[in-house]
Amino acid sequence: MDDTVTLTLDEAQRLSHEVLTRNGFSESHAAAITRNVVAVQQDECHSHGLYRLISCVETLRNGGVKPDAVPWVENLAPGVVRTDADQGCSLLAFEQARPILMEKARTNGIALLAVNNAFHFSALWPEVESLSEAGLVALAMTPSHAFVAPAGGSRPLLGTNPVAFSWPRPGRFPYTFDFATSVVARGEIELHRRASETLPAGWAIDAEGAPTTDPEAALEGAMLPFGGHKGAALSIMIELLAGPLIGDLLGHETRAATPGGEGRPQHGELLLAIDPAVLTGASVEQHLAHAEALFEGVLAQGARLPSQRRHAARQRSWTKGLTIPMTLYQELDRLRG
Amino acid sequence: MDDTVTLTLDEAQRLSHEVLTRNGFSESHAAAITRNVVAVQQDECHSHGLYRLISCVETLRNGGVKPDAVPWVENLAPGVVRTDADQGCSLLAFEQARPILMEKARTNGIALLAVNNAFHFSALWPEVESLSEAGLVALAMTPSHAFVAPAGGSRPLLGTNPVAFSWPRPGRFPYTFDFATSVVARGEIELHRRASETLPAGWAIDAEGAPTTDPEAALEGAMLPFGGHKGAALSIMIELLAGPLIGDLLGHETRAATPGGEGRPQHGELLLAIDPAVLTGASVEQHLAHAEALFEGVLAQGARLPSQRRHAARQRSWTKGLTIPMTLYQELDRLRG
Repeated sequence: MDDTVTLTLDEAQRLSHEVLTRNGFSESHAAAITRNVVAVQQDECHSHGLYRLISCVETLRNGGVKPDAVPWVENLAPGVVRTDADQGCSLLAFEQARPILMEKARTNGIALLAVNNAFHFSALWPEVESLSEAGLVALAMTPSHAFVAPAGGSRPLLGTNPVAFSWPRPGRFPYTFDFATSVVARGEIELHRRASETLPAGWAIDAEGAPTTDPEAALEGAMLPFGGHKGAALSIMIELLAGPLIGDLLGHETRAATPGGEGRPQHGELLLAIDPAVLTGASVEQHLAHAEALFEGVLAQGARLPSQRRHAARQRSWTKGLTIPMTLYQELDRLRG
Repeated sequence: MDDTVTLTLDEAQRLSHEVLTRNGFSESHAAAITRNVVAVQQDECHSHGLYRLISCVETLRNGGVKPDAVPWVENLAPGVVRTDADQGCSLLAFEQARPILMEKARTNGIALLAVNNAFHFSALWPEVESLSEAGLVALAMTPSHAFVAPAGGSRPLLGTNPVAFSWPRPGRFPYTFDFATSVVARGEIELHRRASETLPAGWAIDAEGAPTTDPEAALEGAMLPFGGHKGAALSIMIELLAGPLIGDLLGHETRAATPGGEGRPQHGELLLAIDPAVLTGASVEQHLAHAEALFEGVLAQGARLPSQRRHAARQRSWTKGLTIPMTLYQELDRLRG
């Protein structure tokens, strides 16, 4: 038996949509979630692609997400829009507020979107890239549950607190990065656990605060922030901006839903959008072209741009389809019943 | 002879002001620069304190900064203000535009300040802290000259590209960080060179792209970004936002002024300000108080907050004065003629 299966885009979308709707998500949530996880799977990021549907359904079964939540959007100021996800998944709330964020960015030059009370499990780059494809510069951040120790600490306190940035490159994929402020995304540790592989040194500490390479011990202990105290400082910034600034929770106040019905995974997300055309007016194209000199300078040294591998994968996926592990396919196929 | 000298706040301010005005800076530039370097010296950050007056005067003598530049402020959009420093020092331009940035943040929820064509040599934290002392959340960034290689690269391309963030803590010093996206600030390497000390491993590569611990070789080669490819990705973001986004230069297009009259050190700076009261209205104080739980959680583990040491130094300086090396005092005293 082959250990992988290759799906067409249509097949992947149908698989995702059926897994979600047959487990109780509304059509509109299933559509928004599918757009995200299929886009991420196309980019061959396995930790945040179709694999995430498993924990998404598990969260629903554990009562941790409202599957038919209807987000409501609120206009707080000329530069600020807020959307309350009403305990549902963040993706639909983001999609509904996105046009307002974009309009505000075009009018005001810069705008902020606060997403509140959202179950968030997804990669951020499809959100920021969608804004850059419309010509905007975008920044997104969200906390996660307490998985990471502060630099110099010994216990989990901070979320993995990802940050994503995207910059429009006319005629090309945007310059995009999306990374956890932990050394790696928690999904990477989970993938190591599933594959029974040890972790590289420096990723995590165990429950006693001692360094560990055991993924099980790491999941019971704490991950470490990237870049020592600088990464930890950024991580704290992300919790503040996507938490108390927008009237939402800190990472350590949230928890994955458990079979016992405990855990409240919802928290906030913050997005910023800036319209370069407001800043540089008629010469905006010239200045965007100017930015290319920086990307060329990186590539000329044999170094890579952060989104390069993903974008190459996306182009492969467009022609060759989406290849996923057979075990994952079978699990998802069971989930759609 | 004592190897240090302790100045009162007044003496430090007068020393700075006289060094600057007697070398040709206008009164208003000298006042703005003095406010910055004395604040930084109070915080016992020697690399960006009074020591920076030496290179500031050197830049002036080399024709690299316009000492009597008059910044002009332009209202670009409801959420965007721009100030052109006209080849002068960034600090006066920032101070003049700050009230407009603050007003825009209060009205729109979020606002952006672009500083263009500025000679920038100063720490960013006094700027973001001044916004947080007025109740705003603030983010600042600026490129510097090409001192840093991208992750996986071998030659200087990126600036040290500092980023600073500040969060208002009612009744306390703000939560503030300000760090270079290089492993350390370039000033630290210069201090090692002046002290004839070797560098820790991992800070820099030499002109051939090989690791080095020699500060001279590092200054001729390249510094490394903090946190590998994540730090490099952030550094690129900073160059884009404080460069082409606001119609200004990339780090590698700028150069320190040299005695031959070459080099054009000017570039851009970007600041964002967000008013928490726009986001959470009447409950803003409750949410700011809520943020304290995160800081308490860090401290409860024996870990430190990024600004802790600086703020303690500030309180010491208020009572005990500013202690600087005698060699620095003598050099500055010579400079004021």
